[in-house]
Amino acid sequence: MLSTMQDVPLTVTRILEHGMTVHGTSRVTTWTGEGEPLRRSFKEIGERAARLAGALRDDLGVIGDQRVATLMWNDSDHVEAYFAVPAMGAVLHTLNLRLAVEQLVWIVNHAADRVIIVGGSLLPLLVPLLPHLPTVEHVVVAGPGDRSLLDGVTPAVHEYEELLAGRPATYDWPELDERDAAALCYTSGTTGDPKGVVFSHRSIYLHSMQVNMAQSMGLTDQDTSLVVVPQFHVNAWGLPHAAFMTGVNLLMPSRFLQPAPLAEMIESERPTHAAAVPTIWQGLLTELTARPRDTTSLTQVTIGGSACPPALMEAFDRLGMRVCHAWGMTETSPLGTVARPPAHAIGTDEEWSYRLTQGRFPTGVEARLTGPDGERLPSDGRSEGEVEVRGPWIAASYYGGADGENFRPADRFSDDGWLKTGDVGSISADGFLTLTDRAKDVIKSGGEWISSLALENALMAHPAVAEAAVIAVPDDKWGERPLATVVWKDGESTDFAHLHEFMAGEIAKWQLPERWTVVAGLPRTSVGKFDKKALRKQYADGELDVSKLGASPLD
Amino acid sequence: MLSTMQDVPLTVTRILEHGMTVHGTSRVTTWTGEGEPLRRSFKEIGERAARLAGALRDDLGVIGDQRVATLMWNDSDHVEAYFAVPAMGAVLHTLNLRLAVEQLVWIVNHAADRVIIVGGSLLPLLVPLLPHLPTVEHVVVAGPGDRSLLDGVTPAVHEYEELLAGRPATYDWPELDERDAAALCYTSGTTGDPKGVVFSHRSIYLHSMQVNMAQSMGLTDQDTSLVVVPQFHVNAWGLPHAAFMTGVNLLMPSRFLQPAPLAEMIESERPTHAAAVPTIWQGLLTELTARPRDTTSLTQVTIGGSACPPALMEAFDRLGMRVCHAWGMTETSPLGTVARPPAHAIGTDEEWSYRLTQGRFPTGVEARLTGPDGERLPSDGRSEGEVEVRGPWIAASYYGGADGENFRPADRFSDDGWLKTGDVGSISADGFLTLTDRAKDVIKSGGEWISSLALENALMAHPAVAEAAVIAVPDDKWGERPLATVVWKDGESTDFAHLHEFMAGEIAKWQLPERWTVVAGLPRTSVGKFDKKALRKQYADGELDVSKLGASPLD
Repeated sequence: MLSTMQDVPLTVTRILEHGMTVHGTSRVTTWTGEGEPLRRSFKEIGERAARLAGALRDDLGVIGDQRVATLMWNDSDHVEAYFAVPAMGAVLHTLNLRLAVEQLVWIVNHAADRVIIVGGSLLPLLVPLLPHLPTVEHVVVAGPGDRSLLDGVTPAVHEYEELLAGRPATYDWPELDERDAAALCYTSGTTGDPKGVVFSHRSIYLHSMQVNMAQSMGLTDQDTSLVVVPQFHVNAWGLPHAAFMTGVNLLMPSRFLQPAPLAEMIESERPTHAAAVPTIWQGLLTELTARPRDTTSLTQVTIGGSACPPALMEAFDRLGMRVCHAWGMTETSPLGTVARPPAHAIGTDEEWSYRLTQGRFPTGVEARLTGPDGERLPSDGRSEGEVEVRGPWIAASYYGGADGENFRPADRFSDDGWLKTGDVGSISADGFLTLTDRAKDVIKSGGEWISSLALENALMAHPAVAEAAVIAVPDDKWGERPLATVVWKDGESTDFAHLHEFMAGEIAKWQLPERWTVVAGLPRTSVGKFDKKALRKQYADGELDVSKLGASPLD
Repeated sequence: MLSTMQDVPLTVTRILEHGMTVHGTSRVTTWTGEGEPLRRSFKEIGERAARLAGALRDDLGVIGDQRVATLMWNDSDHVEAYFAVPAMGAVLHTLNLRLAVEQLVWIVNHAADRVIIVGGSLLPLLVPLLPHLPTVEHVVVAGPGDRSLLDGVTPAVHEYEELLAGRPATYDWPELDERDAAALCYTSGTTGDPKGVVFSHRSIYLHSMQVNMAQSMGLTDQDTSLVVVPQFHVNAWGLPHAAFMTGVNLLMPSRFLQPAPLAEMIESERPTHAAAVPTIWQGLLTELTARPRDTTSLTQVTIGGSACPPALMEAFDRLGMRVCHAWGMTETSPLGTVARPPAHAIGTDEEWSYRLTQGRFPTGVEARLTGPDGERLPSDGRSEGEVEVRGPWIAASYYGGADGENFRPADRFSDDGWLKTGDVGSISADGFLTLTDRAKDVIKSGGEWISSLALENALMAHPAVAEAAVIAVPDDKWGERPLATVVWKDGESTDFAHLHEFMAGEIAKWQLPERWTVVAGLPRTSVGKFDKKALRKQYADGELDVSKLGASPLD
């Protein structure tokens, strides 16, 4: 029996056409730092996207699935590129402007980008890289910036507005297959080369529907979303696409991500929703405490990237901004969970504990836990394992391995095709995820897992400890055991036996570290996290002065 | 460049598995008319669906895409069939128990149903049909009803609960293709044979996501939906599937669709949402006016099937139940539009006019207008044409034509594959649909359209007119012209020239009818609408006494 349904592909083109017609009066407002913000309706953006596609095709000769990169802040030009490039059949490659220069060069070359659209203010970052980017034939400059920096560069240089001015406001968008590549984003992993995730039209479409479900972000044309999360960071969590589906107005901060301008744009543009990482939101709180503003419009804040400290959540609750955790990664498009408490918990003591989880899996994201020996663990809210996920907007592989084919490293994908997230935690029976560690940081001791984070939190609760990192080190008997690395507070210290005893109230005895070391400071990654990879190397190279408190508690 | 995304099919199985785990404590509550309602959690329903699938496969031998029909009211057993049958790979065929007996027989034979699951209270309807249903090998009886009616019937008879008791609470659901057939529903068209629409897993999944979008019904696990719209009526507008996606509790009225029990279940079960057709909702208003109840929980009512009279909407507004129009048909799964006013209209005089439209097209439903001569008309809020739609949950054909293949009648599908809805109206620039007539009732006069509804409304505003129907009749010069058919109120009458003049204030002169007839009563369809097909036949057969008021106004 054959279905009688139409076989209409799920494409970015449909999202664009819907947004620019049905929601043609919704707007993208871009903060300019001085004077009036730049306001463009979805209809204008759609027309400008058509002009951009025409220019890319006819002036720059972009064909097929060639890559068009963006090196841009969040602004309406960037939204135009979000739609024009995939809808014309090419692939949008958003470049993370915070990456190390070497990584940017590696990524552009790996993706073989033919065109880079660059925000004028980012020319000082781009221009020195150009000699190392042989595939880049065209640079298109949008917005204010010093063009003279481009004098003498090899690629052809174009003005964004001039390109658009020369082309019609309509484009004969091709019919695409929904499984065609639409956008490319590289993970900024700390191990090995960056890895490319290629989103399909289908995955973007389905992810956007999910973002718009009431159980998820649930925004409508009555909302204005302040998109602090960068557009180069996993499609700004899908908000531009989701917005064109339901007419959500977008407020784009451009490069003005400092607390003062953020507070100013909230007061004057009155967004109802914001999406940000905790660090930036913490800064905003400090600003609002020092100089209160009218932020009453903003009632819903989606926080992702890492967990929001409870104190920060409480502080924002008091301001009327309800923080809602979301969890995900480049490989999950990124929305993997959203922490909306279940109905029965609302208004009870349980509500808070649900809000502190990473969130609940939506339809479309199946999740399971795998233990240290690859065994399946139950979703019972207690068992801890590596989180594996499956779904139509979850990655199955990475782009372009050594042989040119997409590749599936065994540490990231299970034999049956699920993504290994690298996150360790538990899943409750009602689908809430609580993370306890990263898989690469967890200590695998005698077939059981010890959370490095739990040990670090217990250590840092001691008044003499400024910082602490716990890493796994090899152990003949147990496979791995924890090594506690401690930084004393200025003028403070104590002995390891005391710390060991101090932690014993919190931590199971067999999990307590017997190896200890003191360092002056902990190495950090580019995003400010403890660099445990560097620490593991220091240990392996014998650079740490390790004490041992007798045998393992298990011996 | 190949996408790196997982290729996970969108299936009813995924919806079931998500609902019974993540939302396992949400409930389906079935009204029983006396005593406590029957309450089952989504987890129980999932387990019972597995038992049902096991029984259908192993006891009844259902394989492949064989059809399993349901002749049932809205209840939790019916929800189990909704999931079990498609998830096992078979096709759920919901039988409309309000159809004429001949149509039911035709439909069951056309679908070649192998099994019918029947609500016990509906045995008096089913049993007399069985001798005419040669493909039906098994009858499964669920819920209370007189089993002795089945004595001596040819198909094997089974008790629903006994089948379930004999099977395990898990089932090894097959991996299905998302384009596989999942459910079958016949349109009860007034012209020709009923036509079967076969929903795919994909279309059901996408439609359910759309239902759950905040811009649409936007329900969450905090909601309880009173599903008055029958499950045999286009999948109860997708609510059971949508509910399992986000944990919406379902309140099922079973056969208790009378105003008093509806009022009672609203008061005692406190639903937050209801979905119904205007007729039933009108009855509820009368009941609530006579005997007020606490209906404060119920704030959102989706009304479809036909437009809700403004007076009814206002009356429900006063009760705190906000009525929201939705429009669609079997061929659109059915959600084609939802009348949520745009942000700019909320709180203004415009809000009401938006609420009176049929609603706004969501992402996933593209719409266009076609004029009398097949020309494309603009979506400008003024041009009127037949509404054509396209999208992944819109029909492309009907099931099983004469040659066994799915077929595409030219009056229902355009050459380029869009569905011709048979509805005539306008579409505003911001995607709101306003219907003015059915395409088969509109009068095509000299290349222009005249709305039969507009003429009828103008006529019925006259104090002497009880009812009026206007049909198209052949005209040598103009192709078609309107014939006005009038029923006088008891003891009242006037002459046609006066009525003609009376209408002239409302209706353009060239649209006014010159042909007039008086009848004692108008023929009606099974659902109570004027039967214009019968009227056109009476005219063709010369059975009407037609007067002509001079020449056409256009001559």
